Amino acid sequence: MSKSDIALLGLGVMGKSLALNLLDHGFNVAGFDINSLNRDNAAKKARELSQQSGKGDFYNASNLGELLANLATPRVIALSVPAGSIVDSVIDQLIAAGLEAQDIVIDTGNSLWTDSERRERNYQGKLRFFSTAVSGGEVGARFGPSLMASGDLSAWQVVKPMWQAIAAKVDQHGQPLGQFESGEPCAAYLGPAGAGHYVKMVHNGIEYADMQLICEAYHVMSQLPLSAQQIGATFAKWNQGVLSSYLLEISAEILQTSDPVTHQPFVDIVLDKAGQKGTGLWTAVNALQVGVPAPTIAQAVFARAQSGQKALRVKAADMLSKPSPLAPNDFDALLDDLHDALFSAKVAVYAQGFDLIKTTAHAEQWPLDFIAIAKIWRAGCIIRAQILQDISQAYQDDSQLENLLLAPSFSAQISGKAPGWRRAVAHAALSGVPMPAISSALSYYDGLRSAVLPANLLQAQRDYFGAHSYARVDEPEHRRYHLTWSASDKQQIEL
Amino acid sequence: MSKSDIALLGLGVMGKSLALNLLDHGFNVAGFDINSLNRDNAAKKARELSQQSGKGDFYNASNLGELLANLATPRVIALSVPAGSIVDSVIDQLIAAGLEAQDIVIDTGNSLWTDSERRERNYQGKLRFFSTAVSGGEVGARFGPSLMASGDLSAWQVVKPMWQAIAAKVDQHGQPLGQFESGEPCAAYLGPAGAGHYVKMVHNGIEYADMQLICEAYHVMSQLPLSAQQIGATFAKWNQGVLSSYLLEISAEILQTSDPVTHQPFVDIVLDKAGQKGTGLWTAVNALQVGVPAPTIAQAVFARAQSGQKALRVKAADMLSKPSPLAPNDFDALLDDLHDALFSAKVAVYAQGFDLIKTTAHAEQWPLDFIAIAKIWRAGCIIRAQILQDISQAYQDDSQLENLLLAPSFSAQISGKAPGWRRAVAHAALSGVPMPAISSALSYYDGLRSAVLPANLLQAQRDYFGAHSYARVDEPEHRRYHLTWSASDKQQIEL
Repeated sequence: MSKSDIALLGLGVMGKSLALNLLDHGFNVAGFDINSLNRDNAAKKARELSQQSGKGDFYNASNLGELLANLATPRVIALSVPAGSIVDSVIDQLIAAGLEAQDIVIDTGNSLWTDSERRERNYQGKLRFFSTAVSGGEVGARFGPSLMASGDLSAWQVVKPMWQAIAAKVDQHGQPLGQFESGEPCAAYLGPAGAGHYVKMVHNGIEYADMQLICEAYHVMSQLPLSAQQIGATFAKWNQGVLSSYLLEISAEILQTSDPVTHQPFVDIVLDKAGQKGTGLWTAVNALQVGVPAPTIAQAVFARAQSGQKALRVKAADMLSKPSPLAPNDFDALLDDLHDALFSAKVAVYAQGFDLIKTTAHAEQWPLDFIAIAKIWRAGCIIRAQILQDISQAYQDDSQLENLLLAPSFSAQISGKAPGWRRAVAHAALSGVPMPAISSALSYYDGLRSAVLPANLLQAQRDYFGAHSYARVDEPEHRRYHLTWSASDKQQIEL
Repeated sequence: MSKSDIALLGLGVMGKSLALNLLDHGFNVAGFDINSLNRDNAAKKARELSQQSGKGDFYNASNLGELLANLATPRVIALSVPAGSIVDSVIDQLIAAGLEAQDIVIDTGNSLWTDSERRERNYQGKLRFFSTAVSGGEVGARFGPSLMASGDLSAWQVVKPMWQAIAAKVDQHGQPLGQFESGEPCAAYLGPAGAGHYVKMVHNGIEYADMQLICEAYHVMSQLPLSAQQIGATFAKWNQGVLSSYLLEISAEILQTSDPVTHQPFVDIVLDKAGQKGTGLWTAVNALQVGVPAPTIAQAVFARAQSGQKALRVKAADMLSKPSPLAPNDFDALLDDLHDALFSAKVAVYAQGFDLIKTTAHAEQWPLDFIAIAKIWRAGCIIRAQILQDISQAYQDDSQLENLLLAPSFSAQISGKAPGWRRAVAHAALSGVPMPAISSALSYYDGLRSAVLPANLLQAQRDYFGAHSYARVDEPEHRRYHLTWSASDKQQIEL
C-alpha cells in the first residue's frame, strides 16, 4: 500500500468527516485518535467507503510514530482536536515523535485567531504551521465545507489540491453544486496563520446575527394569527428570492416540522433558551476592542443571553404591563415589511462584519481578498446565501469599497426596502415584540447616514466633567480645546 | 510637626485633588511624585490651603524613604498613578523602601478589577492591599468623590474615617450636600479587592449608556425646528423632575452655552467624534463574557465607535437615500414621549448594570450590598441622579430583587411611560434618526417581558445544522434531544 497523502489526528465528528471526504476524492488518509472508540468507528466507516468506491485508502495508526511513518513527505497532518492547550500539546508530541521542519501541521479546529498567530511564531523553523477554519459543521466537513486556509504560504501549495478537492463547489451563478460536481471551490488561502481563524470568527458573528434576524421576523409573525406552518411557508416563499439562504431554508423546514411526540408544531415544544459556543461572543468582543461598530452581532449574542433568563422572563411577563394590542389591518403589508427588514438588516450585518475584517486586516497587515472571502462563503458554510454572490460582485466592482452599504447595488436595493424596514421596527416597538438585532441594524444604517451624530454633545459632556477636550468643526482635528466650564465667562483654551 | 495620616503617591490631577480634600478635613498628608513639577505644584497649593485653613499639614517628600519615614504606623499610602504595570512597580519600590506587612497600600487608579484581584493575592503577607475606585473626576476628588472601597477588611477600619470625611455627602432625601456639610457619606466598603474596581467599571458602563441616551433624545430634538438653546431649556425643565441628574444638568448647560469664538451654539462647533478611555468597553466585554444581557451599554460603546467614522458618514449621507420627512403635528407630545423614553431606558440601563454586578458578585462570592452601591452613587460621581435614591429604596424594599425593572415602584412608573417610549422609538425609526441605545433598552424590556422568546427557533436551527440538541418545554430541562433532521421520517433521539 502506498503512503498516505494526509493524516487526520483526531477522529471525532469533524475529523472523521474530513477523512471520509478526502477518501471520497481519492486521497490516501492516515488516522489516529487517542480515543480508541473514535478510531475504530472512523476506521470501520473508512474501510466501508474505500471498498465501495475503490478510491482512497485509510490507514488506521495506533500511535503517532506509526502515523508519521505512514505519511509521504513532506508530511501533512491535519489536527481535529478541541481548541485550546490541547493543540499545543499535540503539536509538541508530534515534534517529539519525529516531525521535521518541512512537515506541515494544519489546525482545523475552532482556535482563537490570536492562538494561531502565536503558534505560527512559536513553531517557526520546527514545522510549517498552517491553519484552516472549517465551516459547515458535520455535513459540510463530510460532503463539502467552506475552508478558510492560512499560514505558511509554501505549505499552501501542498495542501491546496486536497482542500480544493474536498471543499464545497459553486457554479458560475454562485449556486452550490453536489459533492462530485466540478465548479469553483469554496477554499481559499487568506494570509498568515491568524487570518483563517479570524475570518471564520467573523463568519460566526455574522451567523449569530443572521439567525437572530430570522428569529425576530418569526417572533413578530408568531404574534399574528398565523400558524407555525404558515410562517414556515412564508419563509419558504421568501427563500426563492433575494433572501435565499441556507438558514432561511432550514428555518422554513423547522417551522413546518411536527414534533414526533405530541404532533404539535416542533418549534412550540422546543425550550426557548439558546446555547452558544463562544465564537459569536469573540466577534463582538473583538469589535468592541478594535473600535468597529458591530452592534447587531453584539445584540445577537445578548439576545441569546437574555433567552437564558427563562424563569425571570416568565415571572416578568406576569408582572409587567403589556402594550395595547396593535392590530395591523393589512397582514400582507406587514409581512412585506418584515421581508424588507430582514434583507436590509442582513446587508447591514455583512457591512459590520466586513468592516471588522478590513480593520483587523489593516492592523495585522494581512493582504485579505474580500472577493475571495465572499466567494468561499457561498457554499459549504452555515451563512451560505444568494447575497454572497452580490457581495463578491460588489467587491469586484470596487475593491476599495469602504462599507458594503455604499455599494451601488445594495444602496439601491435598500433605498427601496428601507421604508418597510422602518415600518417593521416601528411596528415591533409599538406592539411590544423585542427586535434587538433588526432595530440595531437600522440604527447602524441611520448612524452611517448621519453626517452629524450627537457625539458633539457627548464630547462636550466629556470636556465638561473630565476635561477630555474637543476638536472644532471649523479647525483641523488635531487642535484640541477645553472650555473653562466653571468660569462665569467661559473661555476656550487650546491644549 | 506630627507624622502624616496618609501619603499620596502620585500628585497629578487626581492625586493632588485627593490630597487637598484630605487637608481640608484636617488630615496630615505626605506627598510624592517622580515628576518634580507635579510635586512642587501640589506642595504649593497644599501649603496655601494649610495656611488659609489652619487644618491639615502637607509634607513634601523627595523620595520614597522620606515618604515612609514621615507616616504614622500602620502606614497608609494611596497610589494615584496610571493603571497597569506602573501600579505593580510602584508597590514593589515601596516594599524595597521598607514597607511593612501591617502597612496599607490603596490603589485609587482606574485599574482593571482582575488586576486588583491578582494584587490582593500577590501581596498577601507583604502589605495590606486595598483598592478604592474614585468617581467624580477632578472636581469630585477635590470636593467630594464617590468612593468604592474594597480589599483587606482590617485596612478598612484604618481608612474609613478618612474616606468618609472626604467623600461626597447626601441629605436624608439623597440630595447632594456641600463639602463641609454633614450627611451620609458616599463611601462604602464593598468586599474583596476586585469589588471596588468592578463596581466602578459597571458605573462607567452605565455612564456611557446614560450619556448616549441623552444624546439620542437631543438628536431627535435637533431635527425639529428647535434651537440648541430651546433644547437645553427643555432639558433644564426635565431636570426638575424624575430625570434629575448631573448629566442632564450639564447637558442643559452645554446646549445653552455659546461658542466664545463664533457665538454660535457651542455644540454646533464641536466635532461629533467621541473619544473613550476604555472602561465602558470593559463593561460591555465583561457582560458578553459572563453572559448577562447588557445590550444598551454595548450600544453606547458602538455609538462612540461609529461617531469616529466621520469621513465615511459624511460620504454616506450624500450617497444613501433619506426617508420621507416625518412631520409630527404635535411637538409637545413628541417631547413628552422622549422624556418618558429617556426615563424608561435609563431604568433599563441600571437593570442591566445591577444584573451584571449581581452575576459577578455571585461568581466571585462577593457579599455586595446593592443598597450601599446605589447610595454611594447618589453624589460625587458622574451618574449621580435622583433615580439612585429610588433604586436604593427598591433594594431596601426587596434585597432579593432579581431585576430592577420588576421593582414595583419602577414597573408602575414604566407602565405609564412605556407608550411614550414606544412612540419615541417608532418615531426615530420612521424619521431616520439613529436611536441605538434607547431602542435597545426597549428591546431589552420587551425581551424581559417575553415569557417565550424566539430562541426556540434558534435552538432548533442549532440542532439542525450542528446537532447542538434541544430541551423540551414538556420535559425537565436537563433532558436533551436531537431530531434526525435529514431522515424522511424525523425521529427524536434522547442524548
